[in-house]
Amino acid sequence: MSNTLGTFFRLTTFGESHGKAIGGVVDGCPSGIAFDETFIADEMLQRHIGNGTTARREPDRVEIISGVYKGQTLGTPIAFIIKNCDTHSEDYDELADYFRPGHADYTTVMRYGIRDPRGGGRASGRETAIWVAAGAIAKMVLKTRNISVKATVAKTATPPDSDSCGGIVECIIDGVPAGIGNPVFEKLNARLAAAMMSIPSAIGFEMGAGFAATQMTGSQYRDNWKSDFTTQTNHCGGIQGGISNGMPIMFRVAFHPVVTIQQPTNCINSNGIIRTITPQGRHDSNHIPRTAVVVEAMAAITIADFTCRTNS
Amino acid sequence: MSNTLGTFFRLTTFGESHGKAIGGVVDGCPSGIAFDETFIADEMLQRHIGNGTTARREPDRVEIISGVYKGQTLGTPIAFIIKNCDTHSEDYDELADYFRPGHADYTTVMRYGIRDPRGGGRASGRETAIWVAAGAIAKMVLKTRNISVKATVAKTATPPDSDSCGGIVECIIDGVPAGIGNPVFEKLNARLAAAMMSIPSAIGFEMGAGFAATQMTGSQYRDNWKSDFTTQTNHCGGIQGGISNGMPIMFRVAFHPVVTIQQPTNCINSNGIIRTITPQGRHDSNHIPRTAVVVEAMAAITIADFTCRTNS
Amino acid sequence: MSNTLGTFFRLTTFGESHGKAIGGVVDGCPSGIAFDETFIADEMLQRHIGNGTTARREPDRVEIISGVYKGQTLGTPIAFIIKNCDTHSEDYDELADYFRPGHADYTTVMRYGIRDPRGGGRASGRETAIWVAAGAIAKMVLKTRNISVKATVAKTATPPDSDSCGGIVECIIDGVPAGIGNPVFEKLNARLAAAMMSIPSAIGFEMGAGFAATQMTGSQYRDNWKSDFTTQTNHCGGIQGGISNGMPIMFRVAFHPVVTIQQPTNCINSNGIIRTITPQGRHDSNHIPRTAVVVEAMAAITIADFTCRTNS
Amino acid sequence: MSNTLGTFFRLTTFGESHGKAIGGVVDGCPSGIAFDETFIADEMLQRHIGNGTTARREPDRVEIISGVYKGQTLGTPIAFIIKNCDTHSEDYDELADYFRPGHADYTTVMRYGIRDPRGGGRASGRETAIWVAAGAIAKMVLKTRNISVKATVAKTATPPDSDSCGGIVECIIDGVPAGIGNPVFEKLNARLAAAMMSIPSAIGFEMGAGFAATQMTGSQYRDNWKSDFTTQTNHCGGIQGGISNGMPIMFRVAFHPVVTIQQPTNCINSNGIIRTITPQGRHDSNHIPRTAVVVEAMAAITIADFTCRTNS
Repeated sequence: MSNTLGTFFRLTTFGESHGKAIGGVVDGCPSGIAFDETFIADEMLQRHIGNGTTARREPDRVEIISGVYKGQTLGTPIAFIIKNCDTHSEDYDELADYFRPGHADYTTVMRYGIRDPRGGGRASGRETAIWVAAGAIAKMVLKTRNISVKATVAKTATPPDSDSCGGIVECIIDGVPAGIGNPVFEKLNARLAAAMMSIPSAIGFEMGAGFAATQMTGSQYRDNWKSDFTTQTNHCGGIQGGISNGMPIMFRVAFHPVVTIQQPTNCINSNGIIRTITPQGRHDSNHIPRTAVVVEAMAAITIADFTCRTNS
Repeated sequence: MSNTLGTFFRLTTFGESHGKAIGGVVDGCPSGIAFDETFIADEMLQRHIGNGTTARREPDRVEIISGVYKGQTLGTPIAFIIKNCDTHSEDYDELADYFRPGHADYTTVMRYGIRDPRGGGRASGRETAIWVAAGAIAKMVLKTRNISVKATVAKTATPPDSDSCGGIVECIIDGVPAGIGNPVFEKLNARLAAAMMSIPSAIGFEMGAGFAATQMTGSQYRDNWKSDFTTQTNHCGGIQGGISNGMPIMFRVAFHPVVTIQQPTNCINSNGIIRTITPQGRHDSNHIPRTAVVVEAMAAITIADFTCRTNS
Repeated sequence: MSNTLGTFFRLTTFGESHGKAIGGVVDGCPSGIAFDETFIADEMLQRHIGNGTTARREPDRVEIISGVYKGQTLGTPIAFIIKNCDTHSEDYDELADYFRPGHADYTTVMRYGIRDPRGGGRASGRETAIWVAAGAIAKMVLKTRNISVKATVAKTATPPDSDSCGGIVECIIDGVPAGIGNPVFEKLNARLAAAMMSIPSAIGFEMGAGFAATQMTGSQYRDNWKSDFTTQTNHCGGIQGGISNGMPIMFRVAFHPVVTIQQPTNCINSNGIIRTITPQGRHDSNHIPRTAVVVEAMAAITIADFTCRTNS
Repeated sequence: MSNTLGTFFRLTTFGESHGKAIGGVVDGCPSGIAFDETFIADEMLQRHIGNGTTARREPDRVEIISGVYKGQTLGTPIAFIIKNCDTHSEDYDELADYFRPGHADYTTVMRYGIRDPRGGGRASGRETAIWVAAGAIAKMVLKTRNISVKATVAKTATPPDSDSCGGIVECIIDGVPAGIGNPVFEKLNARLAAAMMSIPSAIGFEMGAGFAATQMTGSQYRDNWKSDFTTQTNHCGGIQGGISNGMPIMFRVAFHPVVTIQQPTNCINSNGIIRTITPQGRHDSNHIPRTAVVVEAMAAITIADFTCRTNS
């Protein structure tokens, strides 16, 4: 169940990072949507931009298996696969018996009893390639409803040699009409928070004024009306009581630095023996720029899910 | 569907804030759990502590309808109701045709077409009384697994006269074993984020080092191993790759100030006419202290859901 | 999870047969439906008709807790309870340590490890009182869509003294427009089958021509068109490929005789000791007439679920 | 949502009958299961046995994409595809604008507004190839629990020239321990009924004595105990109160004859014009023998779902 996201516009993913292929099934996409494979390729490319530090340059071609006929969606499940290639499994050999700090190695073994030693398995950042492909399909749906999703890097740094840095991505969703969401448990902001905290290395989430709102008084914070039902400020980030109010939806996601760096690293094996290993696989020193399109994808999938539940 | 939280330990809620009663059904609670009604009453009382500013002093007695026999849970659904009383519906009369700023009035009408003018309907903070009752049941389950949940006010203020203030609640969950959670979509941190952002006036969420982690380098951020599988630091907040690592789970929730204050307030009706109204109902100027137990309840329900899915 | 039926129009039930009360929560009922409590009472009465053989004459008054305001549904969860009374728990004393044949006594212990000795617990036929109440609400929804549900006894017998008999209930749903259902897994006929086989003592289900269709040839079986898109015959029972075709939906449910009869009964305890016991509680010798309204209720809930998912 | 079956051992399917490929994702399969691709091929072959009358002889090779490593399941999603070939789309040309009697043509258009004219789309019998592949995986899981599933043709006929016949398939599941199932809504028999009624051309379902039980008295019907907790008869078919009792699970499924036969056929177009067409594609005159393995597959998936929810 933990490999499926969403209820109406719904993504099921599969594939290990170092297996034959990864992929997804989008169920619940409306029929008659113009399907643009070039746009998917563009989005996949965005996931590589600024990506000079990692040599794992998968072409990441998305092959559509079903659900599309003569350039239009059929309303049936859209399945796609992305072949894996250039997977230097040997880069991981020295680490096979050791749990790295800050990774899911240890927790995966505690959860499942076993671990694919060839890489991150399902917990790998490679999973986000599937999300970006599905996000592109979600954006095609949202485009027909005049909804756009744009994420930008709000804050990052230049990492020192052989180290890494984190940052903040800000996302604005324009065009969501008032009335999307739910008042109790499936609040739109709760669903966005869950989607964002699912992204590897996400460590914080805030709507609108966010943590800064804790220093305001109620009279400063509240978004007063204008006569056209917009508000003078947007401290709430476009969602009131779990439901969109028609203003732009605004949120920020904080990402911690990636923890695999080419420095001596304290690792531990299942016997509790600690050993210092310097990882050989090349990794991102700054993953924030290429994470923006992942934020967009998860936002688009979430909004598509709510939009499809309202309209279908 | 939006009135149900969780999958295995699962809460369905009902009741309008100004109707006959509110209540809930907890499905999936294991059998044989010692059931302590006094503890529920204590938790309900916590929700009133520091609550000198609101006169709506409901007794909030939780009446158990089913699922408990001779002081033990049966494994069947536990239903309970909390009668409403002292509901001064007339306090709201002047507002019946107007949407207040910063409330769910407008978004509810945009979502459902209608609105119960007697109060917040389902979007009311009164809903959290149900959550606290269900959270108390979840805590009884967690107690048998030696898991404790404790939330404290990390930051708040004294509001100026006739205004309100927000704040930050910090929560620590002790005793969760390593291996609880999921690696892709139902990540433990994602589910906690969704639960917390469901609380009325929540506007931000962060795990462990949170937003401050965006200013660290990877070598500073990563939590190095000790030989007993604990870590030297806990910047990640006890969750790696969506799965608990055995360290205390730590997170913070930011709350904006309540927006109903006894000051002239800019309201709008469905014709776009703006009018200044001063609300007469008494409301919280500082709701942060009484929100801590709500944070605990939502955390307990979330952890119980994961724990019951693992063990049953 | 096993106490919830449906996805959009969705019923969660609670309560043990010999506890304080039983009840349900209907979530997903559209707003603005005229709510008729007298009709609910009439339906509850139907569940007693022909019921001369059982002395457990519960008044079965349905008390509405939430979701209804001034005679209309609010779109919020409709919770209701039905108090238990006249529960002669002592009738069951002799049976407390023994598993009766043909009952859920043994399977419940094998499933949960414990059993409420005061009666059938959750597996009791009393559960169907909740279903009939929820079914009445579903019928109110269907009425606004001009859909009617009518079940009749197609076959039964007069049981010999101190014995019991089964029978067949036939159900016709009129007014379902073409296009309701799903083509792969959530087929309308599959969902109806699951709903009917959930009824205590149901042992068979067939659509339209049913088992008799296995003796037809394809040229005899197929329902040829008339020019108004109705068909000359209705062997398929109104559903093609999992989706309604606009003809009346017709199905039959077979019920076995109730197995508790006032005759010496072979019972077994957990040590494998077999003993002959003659049950003292009075039970139905022919439950078929009062089961018809249960069939209607489950059909109405199922159709309401599909109708609400299409329209909302 | 209607393309997913199950909750714990869970199958999501995709692919149009005349598109590039069909396939499935099995999520929730336990890790460490010995994975036998030859067995899958054998099962796919069973789906063709006795299949002399249809020329659409797809090789139906199942290509595994993920979830298996060195002959064992990883516990991650198992995705597979089955390429389509030999699809004589032109066979359907004459029918493109006409709805055939007894097919999902008309209901699909009423449901979705569009229809893939190249064949049955998602409602095609080709979908069952995916089910058989997933059923083979389910059987691998059940084998580790000593559970076997065997379906046989209980009744069929020899169809006259250019016509077709239906029949009854009987299924016996051996080795299911007592205690599997649920007492209220997710009854094991209800889930089996839904799975079976999902099979194309299924029109009836009965457990154990089935419809014949309606002619028994309670004293004849009830399954009396033997001292080893088995029963002297098995009229209930191995399930009491929705939960397995440890006896073999027995049920029968009735299938109507296939309705596409090479005889003049009354078809209708969207304008209500009726025309006689003789279909040119070759079709089954007796599909019952090759349906038995589909019954087994759906039974195995259903039991695996219950078994995995109990043990994981």
